[in-house]
Amino acid sequence: MPDPTRRRVLTSAGRLVLGTAGLGTAGLGTASLGTAGLAAPAVARERRVWRLATSWPKNAPGPGTTAARLAERITALSGGRLTVELHAAGELVPALEVFDAVAAGTVELGHSAALFWSGKMPSAPYFTAVPFGLLPEGHDAWLTAGGGQALWDELYGAFGVKPFAAGNSGIQMGGWYRKPIAGLEDLKGLRVRMPGLGGEVLRRLGAAPTTLPPGEIFTALSTGAIDGAEFLGPWQDLSLGLNRAARYYLWPGWHEPNGSAEALVNAAAYAALPEDLQRLIATCCEAENRRGPAEAEWRNAEALARLREDPEVTLAAWPEPVLRAARAQSEAVLAELAEASALDRRLRDSYAAAKARLLPWGRVGRHALLGAQLGA
Amino acid sequence: MPDPTRRRVLTSAGRLVLGTAGLGTAGLGTASLGTAGLAAPAVARERRVWRLATSWPKNAPGPGTTAARLAERITALSGGRLTVELHAAGELVPALEVFDAVAAGTVELGHSAALFWSGKMPSAPYFTAVPFGLLPEGHDAWLTAGGGQALWDELYGAFGVKPFAAGNSGIQMGGWYRKPIAGLEDLKGLRVRMPGLGGEVLRRLGAAPTTLPPGEIFTALSTGAIDGAEFLGPWQDLSLGLNRAARYYLWPGWHEPNGSAEALVNAAAYAALPEDLQRLIATCCEAENRRGPAEAEWRNAEALARLREDPEVTLAAWPEPVLRAARAQSEAVLAELAEASALDRRLRDSYAAAKARLLPWGRVGRHALLGAQLGA
Repeated sequence: MPDPTRRRVLTSAGRLVLGTAGLGTAGLGTASLGTAGLAAPAVARERRVWRLATSWPKNAPGPGTTAARLAERITALSGGRLTVELHAAGELVPALEVFDAVAAGTVELGHSAALFWSGKMPSAPYFTAVPFGLLPEGHDAWLTAGGGQALWDELYGAFGVKPFAAGNSGIQMGGWYRKPIAGLEDLKGLRVRMPGLGGEVLRRLGAAPTTLPPGEIFTALSTGAIDGAEFLGPWQDLSLGLNRAARYYLWPGWHEPNGSAEALVNAAAYAALPEDLQRLIATCCEAENRRGPAEAEWRNAEALARLREDPEVTLAAWPEPVLRAARAQSEAVLAELAEASALDRRLRDSYAAAKARLLPWGRVGRHALLGAQLGA
Repeated sequence: MPDPTRRRVLTSAGRLVLGTAGLGTAGLGTASLGTAGLAAPAVARERRVWRLATSWPKNAPGPGTTAARLAERITALSGGRLTVELHAAGELVPALEVFDAVAAGTVELGHSAALFWSGKMPSAPYFTAVPFGLLPEGHDAWLTAGGGQALWDELYGAFGVKPFAAGNSGIQMGGWYRKPIAGLEDLKGLRVRMPGLGGEVLRRLGAAPTTLPPGEIFTALSTGAIDGAEFLGPWQDLSLGLNRAARYYLWPGWHEPNGSAEALVNAAAYAALPEDLQRLIATCCEAENRRGPAEAEWRNAEALARLREDPEVTLAAWPEPVLRAARAQSEAVLAELAEASALDRRLRDSYAAAKARLLPWGRVGRHALLGAQLGA
């Protein structure tokens, strides 16, 4: 649980105060902001400094730039009332301990991705991406209007964490392979860097999935220690140089058709904020849910254009039998996840219902429009 | 040009002042907000009241609810420094005079759609939708990262207006028809409510497009005064009852594959704002660019599900020859638009380049993923 003595409050006189929640935040906050419509007395205007721990290297393209913009935006728009200090992975806590740090109140804010917490919460990947799951626009629709946010609040709320979707690295590709994949038989024994649920699906198709941190993918793939590797979309894949490590670039990225990042807020710190600062955080996260994916869409398209002109790269579609088998195994994997608890089951049911609701609209809308533009 | 005496400034004492820009806004704004990082002296905190004129009936599903959220959000997050008063179409100015009212400074803010201004600026529809144009995610990518926003600023800037994308009603459907459309010959002489560039494309295919305000579509279609009518997506089409006026519901909505709404800000009023309030407006618009389309995606999917269960409704795809011919005519129409001025040409070139850049990514990404999910 959060330790309120760790919350740092900077008074209007500029003094750094390590205060309790009652005195330092809730008390002054209520006093100064109950009159938000009027000019607040200068002496009551309170300045907070919050620390944002991220799971990304500093300015990593996509999630890293999103986290930096989020920190800057909250700081600027709060007029100095809430300063957010950005910390790259490892500066305060390791990349994969961000959730725990926010839950404990070691930091007030985190920026990360839900699928990292599947060890603690097996269904957490639903809030980033699951195989054959919702695309970004469907994911946003489910969260915003389809009940997804309430389930996310419930899942993380048990740990004292309030989640917000905050940025999206977009649709992924299927990864880089040293040899062509012509059918299911080519997956047998294939060593592929694909973590999480996608890896589990590949395992059931006969491959040998493995987990490697991003910084080790290039070497493992280019030396042949592994046969294939997925990372993200073309933008980030190029930044790792994966196009120089293997020739065959497969599409689509059925294992992760969405790339939502998350902002994590210590629930007690959030509850103690004046309402307008709570809403400011939510609004800045929403804004980043537009800016992040718009930027990713453009950069991914740019990177793909470069790859299409590269004679050393062969773009290839996953064979239809592989997609069919992967889709069936994905459903089996998600069904097993739902067995863990009543909440896991409700989550799966809500997500599956959203997908069933959204897919026919995707068929007559996006799929048909893109098809008409492509002349397909 | 804007009339600065119309800008209303409410002082911290609660008195309504009709001030000049220099004294009422820029002067005090600079004094109070140059020290944004510190607690502002109470006497210098200024309150502005801005009027937002919209092109929508009060709380019209989609654009109307977006405009209301935008006004409320800016008001709440500015802590009373910028109160936005919402006005439905006709309250202050007629729906189709919102742009002129913002340009003249009659109101500081507008919420509308760019395609309404094609009489004044023939290329304005690029900022809402053009036939066979960008989908919402591509449109956002073009505006954010592909140079679209700078061109929009230039186009509207000539009239003293600063534009922001602010909400999106999403992908549309192809409209309601009293008889099946089996091929190009069925379009000959067909009276179809389809305004703008889509209507012009239909005209070149032999139809007789017509323009009717939304409130008149149902009666015209159900009485047979017209043979077909498009409005928006399933959500809004159902709200007009069009499913009771004609049987055949065609997809996809090739004429308008995006539904961006716009916030219009009087440029002089915007320039006179303190920087943090400028950014607040931009951020609230960005947030609405996520909330609006997420809500529309969900509501459209829900409405489509109801229509699929309705025995009185037949969903049908536009025949392939019609799509092919419409695509070719769309390109011809856009090429003619580009002849009007150097800016029109640059706009067309930028948009066409963005589409060419984004489409191959759409092919290996969204189109393939939706196809894999649909088993297509």
